[in-house]
Amino acid sequence: MNTTDTPVTVIGLGLMGQALAGAFLKAGHPTTVWNRTTSKADAVVAGGARLAPTVGDALEAGSLTIICVTDYQAVRELFGASDVGLDGTTLVNLTSGDSAQARETARWAEQRGARYLDGAIMAVPPAIGTAEAVILHSGSEADFEAHKSTLGALGTVTYLGADHGLASLYDVAGLAMMWSVLNAWLQGTALLGTAGVDAATYAPFAQRIAAGVAEWLPGYARQIDSGSFPAEVSALETDARAMAHLIEESEAVGVNAELPKLIKAMADRSIAAGHGGEQYPVLIEEFGKPSGD
Amino acid sequence: MNTTDTPVTVIGLGLMGQALAGAFLKAGHPTTVWNRTTSKADAVVAGGARLAPTVGDALEAGSLTIICVTDYQAVRELFGASDVGLDGTTLVNLTSGDSAQARETARWAEQRGARYLDGAIMAVPPAIGTAEAVILHSGSEADFEAHKSTLGALGTVTYLGADHGLASLYDVAGLAMMWSVLNAWLQGTALLGTAGVDAATYAPFAQRIAAGVAEWLPGYARQIDSGSFPAEVSALETDARAMAHLIEESEAVGVNAELPKLIKAMADRSIAAGHGGEQYPVLIEEFGKPSGD
Repeated sequence: MNTTDTPVTVIGLGLMGQALAGAFLKAGHPTTVWNRTTSKADAVVAGGARLAPTVGDALEAGSLTIICVTDYQAVRELFGASDVGLDGTTLVNLTSGDSAQARETARWAEQRGARYLDGAIMAVPPAIGTAEAVILHSGSEADFEAHKSTLGALGTVTYLGADHGLASLYDVAGLAMMWSVLNAWLQGTALLGTAGVDAATYAPFAQRIAAGVAEWLPGYARQIDSGSFPAEVSALETDARAMAHLIEESEAVGVNAELPKLIKAMADRSIAAGHGGEQYPVLIEEFGKPSGD
Repeated sequence: MNTTDTPVTVIGLGLMGQALAGAFLKAGHPTTVWNRTTSKADAVVAGGARLAPTVGDALEAGSLTIICVTDYQAVRELFGASDVGLDGTTLVNLTSGDSAQARETARWAEQRGARYLDGAIMAVPPAIGTAEAVILHSGSEADFEAHKSTLGALGTVTYLGADHGLASLYDVAGLAMMWSVLNAWLQGTALLGTAGVDAATYAPFAQRIAAGVAEWLPGYARQIDSGSFPAEVSALETDARAMAHLIEESEAVGVNAELPKLIKAMADRSIAAGHGGEQYPVLIEEFGKPSGD
């Protein structure tokens, strides 16, 4: 069977589910869909999808089912009915949730005879079907490999590991990076704005710093994995003095100083714990602890 | 005169000042140094520098003087004595300080007949003299151009604009980006660590996200400069739901949630101000306001 002939099912037709079904249709896959509110299927049905009358019927249409609903509770409710046969199907659950929910749902689905991959979509609906849409998967590598080329219709599909919780963890970790780069850029844009520098002038500078610092990460990771943080480049207590400058400058020119203060608070805590002479990645000890401990 | 024959003076011989003098010596510049504690000059004198007996004498040795002392107060004390002639000299002040101090010191130096450039060193002392050491300059472009090739012995020299405060502002803005990328990476490393993923495995993923998001900045800057934030990619209220996931996941697996909470608090404030349907860069309105307003 040509891979684009592989039938697929998409359960859940919010904006993202519709984009997923649309990408399968565009790639030529016979596509069955189901949604609680059937009117949301109109666009994809017009595009060639078959609307199944029930979840059970939708599952029977093929061996691969993509799930993209509101939350994990909705997944359990939809598939929990006794007349829904999961035996022999592969579920790829792209619903947003946390790592514990992914692991629990994997056990639950596997007990019911399904193969189960958890996933996370690092893209907005309009990007689905392009290489820009990164979709993370975790669970059995054999199950991922069996459906990799079909899933490839959705975007750049990535396999993370057997632990079903990994897709959710990588997803939120990546989002933390995204918002942090944006916030740091906004902090800098606000600072420079007080001197009449426009955002377009400052952006390339911020871009170079972000990309440059990102290149340090693999080297810094070795310090974390070895548990040893010699101050090869700079000691944390030197960094903390520069952090004080960032706070003072932000306050002096009248921009928000909460991000600068959080940066310094984390470093100060590590210095108070005796790590002032070590290098920045020693802060992993603070980031790895629950807040307030 | 060959540019490497241009005499230079370095005032202040902490670790950074010694690195600066060393880079000038290595490039072949006749180098005069001065430091309050003369013993700190030993290494650079051994390397060929001339130790001046007084600041005034050091200034007379050439037309270009680099200053790298503790703070701006020290600059004023050192150069404030009546027997220190500033007339006709060019001062390049690489001392750490804020934009207001840079502007005040520029006025003060110019009133005394000196040309004045303010600067900021975005590098650690061992990098000085290599292209990796980025050194920012602000003040008169003509003064910068006149000494650019001499200053080039120190690293990659960059001119930012006529406002003397710009070097300090770009410096702290760049540092905010550096620490934010590192902190986001540590947050992700801590999250993934709970699933047994080591830092080296996670680092390339974080690196790709940081570099990828950095590429959005010029486009997002156009929204800020136009003051219009249509949700072309995603609306802030959608982002806020994913931020809640990041907080919940961090708390569920027992890692620090302060950075995730700050991310969401800034977004929530913007949503409360009526911007939930707009795109992320609308947060500039929050970053541009003093904290607590």
